[in-house]
Amino acid sequence: MTRTHDSDPAARGPQERTGLELGAFLDWGRDLHHQGRYEDAVKAFELILGVDDGNEEALIGRNRAVRRAVPRWHWEMLHDEERAELYDRAIRQAVAADPDALVLDIGAGSGLLAMMAARAGARQVVACEGQPSVAETAARVVRAAGYDDAVTVVSKMSTRMSVPADLPRRAGLLVTEIVDCGLLGEGILGTIAHAREHLLTPDATIMPSRGRIVAQLVESEALHRKNHVGKLYGFDLAPFNRLSTLEYFDSRLHRHEHRVLSEPVTVFDFDFRTADARPRRTGLRIHPTAAGTLHAVVFWFEMELLPGITVGNPPGRDSHWKQAIQCLPAPPRVQPGEPVVLDAAHDGECVRFDVAADTPAGEPAGRPLAHAEFEVVS
Amino acid sequence: MTRTHDSDPAARGPQERTGLELGAFLDWGRDLHHQGRYEDAVKAFELILGVDDGNEEALIGRNRAVRRAVPRWHWEMLHDEERAELYDRAIRQAVAADPDALVLDIGAGSGLLAMMAARAGARQVVACEGQPSVAETAARVVRAAGYDDAVTVVSKMSTRMSVPADLPRRAGLLVTEIVDCGLLGEGILGTIAHAREHLLTPDATIMPSRGRIVAQLVESEALHRKNHVGKLYGFDLAPFNRLSTLEYFDSRLHRHEHRVLSEPVTVFDFDFRTADARPRRTGLRIHPTAAGTLHAVVFWFEMELLPGITVGNPPGRDSHWKQAIQCLPAPPRVQPGEPVVLDAAHDGECVRFDVAADTPAGEPAGRPLAHAEFEVVS
Repeated sequence: MTRTHDSDPAARGPQERTGLELGAFLDWGRDLHHQGRYEDAVKAFELILGVDDGNEEALIGRNRAVRRAVPRWHWEMLHDEERAELYDRAIRQAVAADPDALVLDIGAGSGLLAMMAARAGARQVVACEGQPSVAETAARVVRAAGYDDAVTVVSKMSTRMSVPADLPRRAGLLVTEIVDCGLLGEGILGTIAHAREHLLTPDATIMPSRGRIVAQLVESEALHRKNHVGKLYGFDLAPFNRLSTLEYFDSRLHRHEHRVLSEPVTVFDFDFRTADARPRRTGLRIHPTAAGTLHAVVFWFEMELLPGITVGNPPGRDSHWKQAIQCLPAPPRVQPGEPVVLDAAHDGECVRFDVAADTPAGEPAGRPLAHAEFEVVS
Repeated sequence: MTRTHDSDPAARGPQERTGLELGAFLDWGRDLHHQGRYEDAVKAFELILGVDDGNEEALIGRNRAVRRAVPRWHWEMLHDEERAELYDRAIRQAVAADPDALVLDIGAGSGLLAMMAARAGARQVVACEGQPSVAETAARVVRAAGYDDAVTVVSKMSTRMSVPADLPRRAGLLVTEIVDCGLLGEGILGTIAHAREHLLTPDATIMPSRGRIVAQLVESEALHRKNHVGKLYGFDLAPFNRLSTLEYFDSRLHRHEHRVLSEPVTVFDFDFRTADARPRRTGLRIHPTAAGTLHAVVFWFEMELLPGITVGNPPGRDSHWKQAIQCLPAPPRVQPGEPVVLDAAHDGECVRFDVAADTPAGEPAGRPLAHAEFEVVS
């Protein structure tokens, strides 16, 4: 038999070679995407690319689904040198103190922190990542960098992991960076509490060890306009504000014209070796340092990785986290000599501020306030 | 019978009054949210608020679901004075030319453009909006502003509307602004083509009447870093780039250090009175004006609302749309005298550029290029 070019399986088109009608599978992938099943869509398109690796529609389909599942801040975070170098320093210090400790990295992302632990001498690192396409990519990064002997990537949320199914034994060092601009938004409180109970040794080193949330009052029409409309072009558009956010969004304070109306004040202080995700509420009595319109409470965190090594996202420092901005729907006027009473609450994941309506400005706060709540941060 | 305070239905708690266990309904609302059914979650929480209007958990639950369904650019768009004033001028001109024309506003948002049409003298305006919570809010804005005699809000995508079920007759004026930074991303081509076929009179005025996409080559490490990692902190993180976007994202060019490497060039030119959403592909031969690394193709649109009234998002103008940035995964070096051949394609909703691999720099492009593709815009 003569083998012709046409009969060479590799030379035939993928549909002819496999008998698969790829158009129908492309439609299926797009349908999964439109249903919001992005990780399923990623898998469908990856299989199509396995059949036909140059299929441009599958390449774009996979990429569009990936972008819905994977936030774009990953790249800015990886380029945040201050964050990376502080974690690297803290990881080296913790691993040097106990190189035999099993390391658990929660929220692996690219695998960077897990590889830092392996490079520092950790013999075994388990890095878990809840987003399947990110976990799969982290495994590729680790393999290409030659750290796959020491680092294992587990494609799972840590809160679904158990010993010994996913982790050979309880870990002696936890490294995690699942924090957003408002510290709690990615669920660090509940995640670490779960890890302490199920995944860590009783004396495990927990990185970060502590975190606190710091807030400051600001006047800023520019921030106010990001969440509020009033009378514009001859129409009162205010009813549209029922769609405004009642909680914080991230933005860079220094990119918006503003005046600070108070010193920074510590709102919540967490010891991650003991904290849990139970909701907390506290009263804050803040003394305005200038008169103005209180458009927003700007807040950020200071996170102690190990004692003496602190990372954070205060205004002015160019952290990839930016700051957390909570606009007030009805901005009050404030002035020195008339303390502002703020009600600060978190539900385990989100911090929210309210100007206490029942306490007129100038009156003493109705609640006793802990000392830490007055602490001036800078 | 003595009526006591306790037996007053209004004074009893909502659970006691209605017999409903609200905690279970709150869990249901959160469950809908976690399933990604945000508009359903909004409805669930609104009903809970109907039973107990001060329920803080329902208020926050509703707001979190709203924020997933309603993008935050609405507020910046409403404050974009240039956009609003150009639309107002064009709408006044179109309505003055034919005050009896039925006006169709597609993508009503807050209802602003529909109210502008009514204020300009249009007797009947139908404003459709595909997001239910936005449509409901637009109806409130219109009612509060006193334009509900002239303006009717329909909570529907225009592509699901028909005459006479949703629109009393074919409309003589279409006003729409469903464009993103890359012009086509919200489906304007298919939406207007559908409207021409099903919802508009044959001689209807279509606003915008034309739109074109303009692109420019830039060198910018800062933009490149938003979509690319290489060797960082001693590790090669490049495999992470399989999660990078292959298409454009929005950002403000002037906020990133950059050098332009070419004049702006028109890529696609659409006449919305005839255009449809069929994919198109074109070759562009661009002459670099400076030597550098081609990190990104930056593009924007110029949209003619009516002849002589143009709105757009070129770099430098502070439009809320920002610009469309498409980073190139492997940025080539370019220099004057060696034309860059770009392959530009759209699939009806997304424009994408590729450096044509089969055409070495310095060689003539393999395809004939239409005159408009060389046109210099500024």
